[in-house]
Amino acid sequence: MAKLTGKVLIAQGGGPTAVINQSLVGAVLESRKFFEVTRVYGATNGVRGIINEDFLDLSQETTHNLEQVAMTPSSALLSTRDKPDDAYCREIFKVCQAHDVRYFFYIGGNDSADTVRIVNSNAEGAGYDMRCIHIPKTVDNDLVINDHTPGFGSAARYVAQAFMGYNLDNRALPGVFIGIVMGRNAGFLTASATLGRKYEDDGPHHVYVPERPFSEEQFLGDVKATMEKHGRCLVAVSEGVMDKDGKPFMIRLSGSSEADAHGNLQLSGSGALGDMLSDLVKEKLKIKRVRADTLGYAQRSYLGVVSDVDAHEAREVGEKAAQFAIWHDQDGSITIQRTGNYSVDYRLVALEEIAAKTKRMPKEFLSLAGNDTTWDFYNYGRPLLGSGFPNVHRIRAPKVARILKNGK
Amino acid sequence: MAKLTGKVLIAQGGGPTAVINQSLVGAVLESRKFFEVTRVYGATNGVRGIINEDFLDLSQETTHNLEQVAMTPSSALLSTRDKPDDAYCREIFKVCQAHDVRYFFYIGGNDSADTVRIVNSNAEGAGYDMRCIHIPKTVDNDLVINDHTPGFGSAARYVAQAFMGYNLDNRALPGVFIGIVMGRNAGFLTASATLGRKYEDDGPHHVYVPERPFSEEQFLGDVKATMEKHGRCLVAVSEGVMDKDGKPFMIRLSGSSEADAHGNLQLSGSGALGDMLSDLVKEKLKIKRVRADTLGYAQRSYLGVVSDVDAHEAREVGEKAAQFAIWHDQDGSITIQRTGNYSVDYRLVALEEIAAKTKRMPKEFLSLAGNDTTWDFYNYGRPLLGSGFPNVHRIRAPKVARILKNGK
Repeated sequence: MAKLTGKVLIAQGGGPTAVINQSLVGAVLESRKFFEVTRVYGATNGVRGIINEDFLDLSQETTHNLEQVAMTPSSALLSTRDKPDDAYCREIFKVCQAHDVRYFFYIGGNDSADTVRIVNSNAEGAGYDMRCIHIPKTVDNDLVINDHTPGFGSAARYVAQAFMGYNLDNRALPGVFIGIVMGRNAGFLTASATLGRKYEDDGPHHVYVPERPFSEEQFLGDVKATMEKHGRCLVAVSEGVMDKDGKPFMIRLSGSSEADAHGNLQLSGSGALGDMLSDLVKEKLKIKRVRADTLGYAQRSYLGVVSDVDAHEAREVGEKAAQFAIWHDQDGSITIQRTGNYSVDYRLVALEEIAAKTKRMPKEFLSLAGNDTTWDFYNYGRPLLGSGFPNVHRIRAPKVARILKNGK
Repeated sequence: MAKLTGKVLIAQGGGPTAVINQSLVGAVLESRKFFEVTRVYGATNGVRGIINEDFLDLSQETTHNLEQVAMTPSSALLSTRDKPDDAYCREIFKVCQAHDVRYFFYIGGNDSADTVRIVNSNAEGAGYDMRCIHIPKTVDNDLVINDHTPGFGSAARYVAQAFMGYNLDNRALPGVFIGIVMGRNAGFLTASATLGRKYEDDGPHHVYVPERPFSEEQFLGDVKATMEKHGRCLVAVSEGVMDKDGKPFMIRLSGSSEADAHGNLQLSGSGALGDMLSDLVKEKLKIKRVRADTLGYAQRSYLGVVSDVDAHEAREVGEKAAQFAIWHDQDGSITIQRTGNYSVDYRLVALEEIAAKTKRMPKEFLSLAGNDTTWDFYNYGRPLLGSGFPNVHRIRAPKVARILKNGK
């Protein structure tokens, strides 16, 4: 087994999650155990911090504070939306070489995996011995090969608990409620809105995800039918729902076009989609009480709603990165594999298997009409929410006979 | 001491809160201890359920299930937005008389207190012996005489934790973040966004509440100054902010005019205000990354974020209602008085002292410029968030010297 001596460099990319610092701390603490590791550096602001050489010496951070940081949501090393091209990745590699970085760990989604892949091929091309590992995270849960990804479970728990509350609120003051959930290409998080349903008439009564074409007609028909059945209707809609031509519904309705460096349209941080769907229901179905909430950044950053299962796994993928790279001298992307109900193990796969690819929900997670989840999804998603998931209860007292309006 | 024998009738009005069922269960369980109480009825859908005689016999509900219901947010007896006029209140009184209701407890805000007042005067006018008690609840915290009201502490905790997360997210991916918080006339809940600040540069950096006129110029100036200072800016804005003529900013910008039976403009359940402020910042300050989230119904209904202090007090105001009415044969509104740091006691005041009046934030809770909170507010609000409030931590590792960009 090769024993490559040098520094470890860690960075965090893309959107924060509730447990991304668990992965950071897992990788740092595990790395610090190895004799071969001369220093553990953390780059601030992701890849941008690397090319700017903005490094913190995490070898000099206390274990105790790192443990506290692990329990704090959102990227402790800060993040970036920069998407490095080949030239940018060459810069990253040069900085690694200059600082004698021999182990590079980048925590992020499929764009980050792609960055790690390019940096790795630069190192190989230059004959510089360096191990590069991608550590997965994403609230969207859209990395291929992975059963699920760290960050998703806590976001799903936040969403499920939010909809449990919306459902109770909507039951007390009936009407139509539309909740807009994060998810550009994959509907896992939106589908999670159904994981807290308990009673037969509990909402969300319908979910609309990017995996199925969104049709105004179906949506309005569903809302109308549920209003007739329950006198109220809750729906969960992915921010990324598309029409049958694959065009985001948001663009169609708004003409909005703000895009980030990854070419992604801005879908979050605005209430536009919810408000448009709300107007649609008011106009077409003549329903007065229609409300739309866009769940927003709280889904990935809310402080205090964390799945313990998610936190443990996020910690472990960080630890595994250090073990695969330093003990086993391997490059790749850490993936989570489900091995029981509920247990997982981790497998290293080639970076190109994950990089820039998107996983979507399998068809068995959605009902035939595409507007609800199935028990398959429930069995998939429920363990990821972790322990101590809250419960709701109803009064079951008998009705009293009327006196003044007897018989009415 | 009079010993009035007959039924207890309880109902819940207005918007739900996280702890409103604690008050319900407190009143039910305490009432069931009294020999004079022949039955405890709960009206479904607030006052509407009373005129429709939609009663559940809560005497026949198990104590154990009631305890479970107490921990479930949102009105278990369901609610209504009906605002009874004199004729409506006469109907309520007639139903009470027909069912031999001798104790009427209504849980709600200042509109509900007004309903209780009118029903009470109907009973007095008819010489019908009946005790009427208003049990306070409101997330807005806007009942006069009360130090604070049940429901506020949990909503404030939800808001504080949300902004702690937004702050971390905004720190990782800098830009302008605007959070729109519930609060039509009173800014307590918006001000609570500041209760989780820890480090000197933590946001929200500014708050805008209905107590102070909202000026576009001040707002844009504040955002600009904070962007220059910290490279990022978080603000919390009350949905009810008004211009200097007392006109809601929302109307001025949108021309929106949907009002409920109380004459209240619809401010919640739409992302319009946030989106408009976001556009304003983009246009006037030429800042690209501007995001707005409207916190929405989660503030009053989110499942799983409850202040234990709030829950205890909500329980006690329910119990006190039964004690004041049944033991002490009194009518009135239960109020919370602060008696220490931190302790409270309850005092019964005349219904007309609370009914249809609105409390606003005292001036010492706001900075001179009106765009931030003070330590007075912190000392007022912090105990209400309860125990186990989460904390955040940062990495404090030393910086590494640059090699390639040495000196830059």
